[in-house]
Amino acid sequence: MPAFSSQPSDPIAVFDSGLGGLTVVRALLRRLPRERLIYFGDTARVPYGSKSPRTVLQFARQCLHFLTQFNPKLMVVACNTVSATALQSLHQDFTVPIIGVLEPGAAAAVAAARIPAGQPRRIGLIATEATIASQAYNQAVTRLDATIQVIGRACPLLVPMIEEGRLQESPIVRSVLQEYLHPFKSLQVPVLILGCTHYPIFSQAIEATLGSSTTLIDSADQTALVVAEKLATMHIANDAGTPLADGLTCYVTDQGQRFESLAGRFLGRLITQPVWVEPERLENLTVEK
Amino acid sequence: MPAFSSQPSDPIAVFDSGLGGLTVVRALLRRLPRERLIYFGDTARVPYGSKSPRTVLQFARQCLHFLTQFNPKLMVVACNTVSATALQSLHQDFTVPIIGVLEPGAAAAVAAARIPAGQPRRIGLIATEATIASQAYNQAVTRLDATIQVIGRACPLLVPMIEEGRLQESPIVRSVLQEYLHPFKSLQVPVLILGCTHYPIFSQAIEATLGSSTTLIDSADQTALVVAEKLATMHIANDAGTPLADGLTCYVTDQGQRFESLAGRFLGRLITQPVWVEPERLENLTVEK
Repeated sequence: MPAFSSQPSDPIAVFDSGLGGLTVVRALLRRLPRERLIYFGDTARVPYGSKSPRTVLQFARQCLHFLTQFNPKLMVVACNTVSATALQSLHQDFTVPIIGVLEPGAAAAVAAARIPAGQPRRIGLIATEATIASQAYNQAVTRLDATIQVIGRACPLLVPMIEEGRLQESPIVRSVLQEYLHPFKSLQVPVLILGCTHYPIFSQAIEATLGSSTTLIDSADQTALVVAEKLATMHIANDAGTPLADGLTCYVTDQGQRFESLAGRFLGRLITQPVWVEPERLENLTVEK
Repeated sequence: MPAFSSQPSDPIAVFDSGLGGLTVVRALLRRLPRERLIYFGDTARVPYGSKSPRTVLQFARQCLHFLTQFNPKLMVVACNTVSATALQSLHQDFTVPIIGVLEPGAAAAVAAARIPAGQPRRIGLIATEATIASQAYNQAVTRLDATIQVIGRACPLLVPMIEEGRLQESPIVRSVLQEYLHPFKSLQVPVLILGCTHYPIFSQAIEATLGSSTTLIDSADQTALVVAEKLATMHIANDAGTPLADGLTCYVTDQGQRFESLAGRFLGRLITQPVWVEPERLENLTVEK
């Protein structure tokens, strides 16, 4: 039983540095249609992926602390950079259970790898600079199977291309992917982890570049599964009644049209206007424990 | 005479959202080798160019307020996004004179345009989304010559490509520039304003794409000239004695190696280790007036 008290009717809080976490929200809505979701995107200070672990941890702490006001039964860190660099510290800061996207993604990758005997035991990873530098995927994979090596590559242009609204059919997207994915093609990795919640938007182009012998791992579905299992184990799943028509409320730190205009691409449907939270409100929060 | 009291020995403060402002520092060091410079890069919250005017103004206020502790005789906003969206408000917030990069750039563009009679009176502008949306260059040019029209285009991939360390010889840089600059090539603009302090890093590739009939305007040199004139008018130039060996001190909000490893590209020489300022220190500052 959990050390804190919560009810099935309490919401699930989902945090990301910006918009990418909405791919995780999409998977959660599909798997858990009766749950209320509170999404928080730190769009004033995005991106986190090119920043230092110290800065990422401090920003993430402030955002999760903001989310505790909604009394969530569970918090999902739907950002690979935060999951890779700050999750251990965040577990110590909050009593609410926190699930990141990294462990579910690593588990799915190891399960999907099925490397034949005699073949090199390597899987691929594309992610932000901060996630690659953290070596956190390597460690998570090693814990599951110490014989598998993770080959990682930072891909700093993918997020800006997606946020620019560029389609995966664009020749520039294809050229950039050719360059970034070249090592994985040469190594013939059986599995490539999409280690940033933005990347599934380009999954068809990534597949076209690598060929069908490489399986892509999008941690969104796997994270939603882990969340469902955790709620069931804790007896706080909201699985009675009819699915909610719109169980999602969004909060963002940057004011403007950008979130609404881009969110549909990640969520697969239009989004209700997000609520704006002044960054200064976060900055004056202190952590609960 | 200024409303505040300052001495020739006081430093010049230079502010940018990140690293790009170092191109302005380079021009200042060249033109004013006896001045002490304090540079502040808000590297924890960079980029500003994709964010809303409200957020940009709030962040800029905090950063300039931080810089006032050094008792600067002049502050330079070496960021086009801040100069375009927030400068009017910042002038009201601070008594220290503030010079942005936009007006000097617009003036240089109009001076360089020399459009023959009978030709369309148009100049080009590439910049961040926020700078383009602000229409501030159009207004600045109109104030100088109401017959000239500014044709602007947001180029969101240029800053990430430069910060990734990508060289201008890269075929991907060439393809992206072909796409972004296509309208200017078709229109045969005589002048293109590089409306972001990062862009001069790619000036050779931009020149190669557009051809030699288009003059590129880099506001860094022009801004340094305006700063020199302002100091002379106010009788606070530090023009006696020998040039300083290293008159530059840098402050940044993100901790890490990224600033040092990239700064050389903007400054044209290695940089002394920057001083780290916790973002929370800024966030608790209030504005002086």
